Amino acid sequence: MKLQFRHVALIGKYQANGSRSALEAIAHFLSQRGCEVSIEQDTANNTGISQYPILNVAGIGAHCDLALVVGGDGTMLGIGRLLARFGIPLIGINQGRLGFITDIAFEGFENVLGPMLSGEFEDDKRWMMQATVVRDGHCVFKATAMNDVVVNRGATTGMVELRVEVDGRFLANQRADGLIIATPTGSTAYALSAGGPLLHPSVGGWILVPIAPHTLSNRPIVLSDSGEITVELVSGRDASANFDMQSLAALMIGDRINVKRSESQMRFLHPKGWSYFDTLRKKLHWNEGVAVGAQSRTSHEI
Amino acid sequence: MKLQFRHVALIGKYQANGSRSALEAIAHFLSQRGCEVSIEQDTANNTGISQYPILNVAGIGAHCDLALVVGGDGTMLGIGRLLARFGIPLIGINQGRLGFITDIAFEGFENVLGPMLSGEFEDDKRWMMQATVVRDGHCVFKATAMNDVVVNRGATTGMVELRVEVDGRFLANQRADGLIIATPTGSTAYALSAGGPLLHPSVGGWILVPIAPHTLSNRPIVLSDSGEITVELVSGRDASANFDMQSLAALMIGDRINVKRSESQMRFLHPKGWSYFDTLRKKLHWNEGVAVGAQSRTSHEI
Amino acid sequence: MKLQFRHVALIGKYQANGSRSALEAIAHFLSQRGCEVSIEQDTANNTGISQYPILNVAGIGAHCDLALVVGGDGTMLGIGRLLARFGIPLIGINQGRLGFITDIAFEGFENVLGPMLSGEFEDDKRWMMQATVVRDGHCVFKATAMNDVVVNRGATTGMVELRVEVDGRFLANQRADGLIIATPTGSTAYALSAGGPLLHPSVGGWILVPIAPHTLSNRPIVLSDSGEITVELVSGRDASANFDMQSLAALMIGDRINVKRSESQMRFLHPKGWSYFDTLRKKLHWNEGVAVGAQSRTSHEI
Amino acid sequence: MKLQFRHVALIGKYQANGSRSALEAIAHFLSQRGCEVSIEQDTANNTGISQYPILNVAGIGAHCDLALVVGGDGTMLGIGRLLARFGIPLIGINQGRLGFITDIAFEGFENVLGPMLSGEFEDDKRWMMQATVVRDGHCVFKATAMNDVVVNRGATTGMVELRVEVDGRFLANQRADGLIIATPTGSTAYALSAGGPLLHPSVGGWILVPIAPHTLSNRPIVLSDSGEITVELVSGRDASANFDMQSLAALMIGDRINVKRSESQMRFLHPKGWSYFDTLRKKLHWNEGVAVGAQSRTSHEI
Repeated sequence: MKLQFRHVALIGKYQANGSRSALEAIAHFLSQRGCEVSIEQDTANNTGISQYPILNVAGIGAHCDLALVVGGDGTMLGIGRLLARFGIPLIGINQGRLGFITDIAFEGFENVLGPMLSGEFEDDKRWMMQATVVRDGHCVFKATAMNDVVVNRGATTGMVELRVEVDGRFLANQRADGLIIATPTGSTAYALSAGGPLLHPSVGGWILVPIAPHTLSNRPIVLSDSGEITVELVSGRDASANFDMQSLAALMIGDRINVKRSESQMRFLHPKGWSYFDTLRKKLHWNEGVAVGAQSRTSHEI
Repeated sequence: MKLQFRHVALIGKYQANGSRSALEAIAHFLSQRGCEVSIEQDTANNTGISQYPILNVAGIGAHCDLALVVGGDGTMLGIGRLLARFGIPLIGINQGRLGFITDIAFEGFENVLGPMLSGEFEDDKRWMMQATVVRDGHCVFKATAMNDVVVNRGATTGMVELRVEVDGRFLANQRADGLIIATPTGSTAYALSAGGPLLHPSVGGWILVPIAPHTLSNRPIVLSDSGEITVELVSGRDASANFDMQSLAALMIGDRINVKRSESQMRFLHPKGWSYFDTLRKKLHWNEGVAVGAQSRTSHEI
Repeated sequence: MKLQFRHVALIGKYQANGSRSALEAIAHFLSQRGCEVSIEQDTANNTGISQYPILNVAGIGAHCDLALVVGGDGTMLGIGRLLARFGIPLIGINQGRLGFITDIAFEGFENVLGPMLSGEFEDDKRWMMQATVVRDGHCVFKATAMNDVVVNRGATTGMVELRVEVDGRFLANQRADGLIIATPTGSTAYALSAGGPLLHPSVGGWILVPIAPHTLSNRPIVLSDSGEITVELVSGRDASANFDMQSLAALMIGDRINVKRSESQMRFLHPKGWSYFDTLRKKLHWNEGVAVGAQSRTSHEI
Repeated sequence: MKLQFRHVALIGKYQANGSRSALEAIAHFLSQRGCEVSIEQDTANNTGISQYPILNVAGIGAHCDLALVVGGDGTMLGIGRLLARFGIPLIGINQGRLGFITDIAFEGFENVLGPMLSGEFEDDKRWMMQATVVRDGHCVFKATAMNDVVVNRGATTGMVELRVEVDGRFLANQRADGLIIATPTGSTAYALSAGGPLLHPSVGGWILVPIAPHTLSNRPIVLSDSGEITVELVSGRDASANFDMQSLAALMIGDRINVKRSESQMRFLHPKGWSYFDTLRKKLHWNEGVAVGAQSRTSHEI
């Protein structure tokens, strides 16, 4: 079958031990299949792999048509974010536990990767959120989030009061420990812990999930991702905003966090037959037949 | 300002007492504004209003360009469903408590309705679900649902086991009291009681909400409304399927309920400045400052 | 060590295949240890075991000081209920999956059972609920429930409205699909599916858990088990009351279900070192390290 | 009727404006009814009331048999905590919104207070929690909590991992934003926001409510208040423990927070006929007939 991807960038989670040999095995496989292989700069530096040309992210964007990532979901998402504007798809291979996005085991990767290079794959596109923090009319912080934007109370303070607007229309004043705005990708992460629903990646929406809300009738709400969500800090000391739990902005009263859809999508490729639902069931342990409730539903007369 | 609607159909909740005088007042107002007014057939029969031409639903579909309904959300949704395929918008006026969709009070309706007739309104479109029950390969039941399709265990039986598929892909086996598939419109109804999130009408999605699920990690999931959802009854005696809690189908093991988006949308008109969120806050009592949690968050040293 | 139990009744889940040989092995073991062994009547009939004296439940109550049950939680609870008024403790051995109460595997039971016969065990006492249905001042139904009393709407009807009182004081009008009143034992069963909390057996309380309540601020409430709870059916067609999901009473408007603590407790014995919490973790899969939320909490910069 | 309380201490929320005249009116009323009246020291200092003897808390404990508090729930709880070991009951009068515990309006207080002084009242006793933080075997912090003990992650950190034990038995490792241990009094406060159940004050139990737990099957659990709960910080930077959200302890890995029942109870008096449930319904807005779900349950065919 004809090769779909001519030039493949190879990227590794450089903190991980033992990834060098995995990367080399994959690079060798790709070369044999006729792909041109380049190594991402930091990956090369960290692993010492030197027999392939080295490219930085911009170079990958300019020259490659596929990125092959060795690592977990976090690594995939981090790289996917950087490559989104170039439209380059990613395939993830993992040496450890498989994730929501990284679903190819290193063990036996050849049998899975082969057909994918020939075009046998499932496409999985994910929108990201562009977020800004505006203070006194000026943008003081900017971030892209694949999972979520979280506004948090300070650790030792009572709560935050947040005014939420959608396209300039007042939604609600939230008094809570915090508020999570999550993408479909983030709906299986922190938002889920806080009681939010699952949101399939094909739904064009964000979820707003309050954390420990004071109003008992407050519920998670799913909004269209075509609008702009604004969260204003009305009150609360030491509040902060997190973007994918990594970039952090300390907030002041009156700060407005604006969230809208990114201009480009991340694109992940999965083996043919891959199903989001299979992953969900597996990760959430839906298969395990926990017989909650069962004891009260059987007849047990002697 | 120029009149946007030339021929208006007037429809009343005929069970309601006292709707005759309300309908007559509205008809009079519409006529004075230059609209041609027709009365829906059952409304005419039940109220005895006879001074306007009478049309049945098909006639309204063929001749009118607006339907004005006196009644609550239930009435609006019932008529909206029938008029959806004709693309005729509806305006709702209520003599009692205002609802999610019916948001014009009869008291002083003239001031609100006047500008709307001239084009000053907010558009509010709602998708419905087309549902069929397939038994042994044959469709044995067919219904349109604006709110929800609900599969229920029998009242005195343990539970149902349901196999859920999306576009032919296996989602999960649900063991529960039942399963709700709700539209955004239905997300504020039964699905909300069962723990589902709110779903803004602009989101192209359905919510699946299990009722008393046996697996604790089971959560509501939002799916795209562009796919087809299939629910198969795997086990459970006396199970049934409800469509908007009114049409009922007794189910047999192996029956498959298929749900997909209707071909046309209901269209409701609201006064300029109307906001879905305002209605939400009001109906869910988000305004009331229930100070849950407050007592533990104040300093109360003597 | 001195034998704590002189006369042991042996009881089997008679539906189960293959229980005869298990029962015989256990009987043999008990005899060898010096216990007098009797077989419960139905167990004898169903298995054909004939080499031991036969006793019915009343006989067991009069003569035995321990009941050894082969079966699952349902069997244990069913027998525990019958033996509670005699104060006879139960030990459960299971050939299949272990439960909340039945926690000794048949495989290797001798090593576990031996020390227990000498007094090395953990005591586990459970209160039950006495429930009556009162119609027009007369008791029309009576049942004992180990898990829960459930009031349900009819399968095809909207909801029930229930007036709940505690010791004659009005608690709330519940409009819902139903209401569960659960013991600590039942807190891991149906009540848990409906969103109730876990209730440790040592807490003297019942949980009230509404099923799909209409009022969003409605929450499960834990009440003292020293009071009497009354649930009156205010409205709702085809409503029913279930007691441990097995005895069923069709309800009429105005019927009052009264629930109070039983006079005696069930008593289960567990191997020394047994912990309710261990069972809970295992049954609810708390050990499994589902990394929900993890993906959003790791740094994943390339 | 005979006077039940001879010597009454009068205590005011000294931050509040306008409480002086209220306090004076109440003092006057008490004197006229034959009570000896003393003013709490800080109250006297802050309001300038000087015509009554002044007592500090220890003096109140030694000499008075009733404390009359003007203020809200926070004030009542703060004073109740101090007076608990003396066994002195409290009555609360509020000039603003009534609370869970403070349920006498200043307006017309005479009609309510009169009968109470003669013994016409309902008793309402509340256990508190004694908490210590133990580091390297030494107690480094000590607090009494009426509502809750809360272990929190740092504001900008991922989560905490907590090892929970009950009377030395392992309950679970909690990976979450935090953990709330609440009294029945606290069950209507922060624990409720985080999804906990209501716990009637007559139940001898505490609730453990995880905040945004990572394991989806993790649920609130109610434990007996006769045991000792220990929470050990296994991992998590900048974690802290709050006691009634006011006293704060920064935590280090390995710190153990021990929680057990206080030796004495707070005692509040309410007007005859008072019901905890009435307050609950009112505070949680259970009366309001939010018709969630109603729209899907009515027939709405035209």
